[in-house]
Amino acid sequence: MTSNTAPDTSMNTDEVYKVLFEFLEQYVSLSDDERAALVSADVIQFVKGGEILIHEGEVVAHGFFVLKGCLRSYYNIHGDEKTTGFCTELENLTPTGLLDGEPSQHFVSALEDSIIIAANKNIEEAVLSAFPKFEKVCRKMAEETVIKQQIDFDTFKTTSPEERYLTLLEKRPDLLQRVSQNHIANYIGITPQSLSRLKSRIFKRS
Amino acid sequence: MTSNTAPDTSMNTDEVYKVLFEFLEQYVSLSDDERAALVSADVIQFVKGGEILIHEGEVVAHGFFVLKGCLRSYYNIHGDEKTTGFCTELENLTPTGLLDGEPSQHFVSALEDSIIIAANKNIEEAVLSAFPKFEKVCRKMAEETVIKQQIDFDTFKTTSPEERYLTLLEKRPDLLQRVSQNHIANYIGITPQSLSRLKSRIFKRS
Repeated sequence: MTSNTAPDTSMNTDEVYKVLFEFLEQYVSLSDDERAALVSADVIQFVKGGEILIHEGEVVAHGFFVLKGCLRSYYNIHGDEKTTGFCTELENLTPTGLLDGEPSQHFVSALEDSIIIAANKNIEEAVLSAFPKFEKVCRKMAEETVIKQQIDFDTFKTTSPEERYLTLLEKRPDLLQRVSQNHIANYIGITPQSLSRLKSRIFKRS
Repeated sequence: MTSNTAPDTSMNTDEVYKVLFEFLEQYVSLSDDERAALVSADVIQFVKGGEILIHEGEVVAHGFFVLKGCLRSYYNIHGDEKTTGFCTELENLTPTGLLDGEPSQHFVSALEDSIIIAANKNIEEAVLSAFPKFEKVCRKMAEETVIKQQIDFDTFKTTSPEERYLTLLEKRPDLLQRVSQNHIANYIGITPQSLSRLKSRIFKRS
């Protein structure tokens, strides 16, 4: 299970909050009270690589924001896994079941030891009610996520698997290093064997 | 061009604002001052069916929210149109270029005579600054949009064209009535001829 103590990563709790505060201060400045409120909300969790954070069928209570590490979202389609997304540093992963409280259609797992914020609606509303300034932060973050998602979705719909791989190579080279080739192949919609041939073709051309 | 007078639709300006206020009051109650601020922001536009709101290559200044009508987002891929989304009543369409102010990669057009809100960042920030209560509305709307988009994206990635058509039939039967079969076929990733055969198969089975 997830834990909010004893990180088995290279960051201690002070360093984790430093990353969080620096991220938030891109949007608004934070007072000491506001920093203290975030610390006391106690929403930071340390998860092990391989750990499953959400199972298919489970009622979803949390959205996730990654401070360090990598999460993967995937579906079980007639016994086969279908990877639909990866989420790394300073990105959020919103499980689809959060909209209406229905059981989750998909899984979320950690691909690496990760440090995440797992905030449920009650905690979010309590912090926002005490510190309305965070409304602006959350609004801007959500608006940015809408556009980034739209770009990803449009790119997926308008490109071939080879073009999707080239887009990852250009825009997310870190992901290609961190994530297994099987997951990457599955994500862009081809078999691992086809990905291998595709990479050979690209390598020969370049 | 778009216009903010003389609607050629079945709604007059009072009725349009009534729809807008009712929608917003799902999130927060509105004072007379707040209603007046929204009216004076003058962001409602009446557009003709067929009108192009954003051209590929144009710098994007506005996001759109549909009060009545239907917008379509599409790309020109080597001379062929690729439809990536439709947007109808009480949905928002965020052009991808809004993230970084780059020229738009895609087009947005009105498929029907439509009544929309076209708000640029300056107007949004001015209204939010005068009435911080709207931060909560915009935050909740954006968070809901993130989840809805994620559901649409995951559905697209994990289904065949036939399953995508069946999903539209179940969840968006109105869209199948309002949008041409060519656009629907293009949206789910097949030719109009294949869509015709697919519909025959579904009809025979039912």
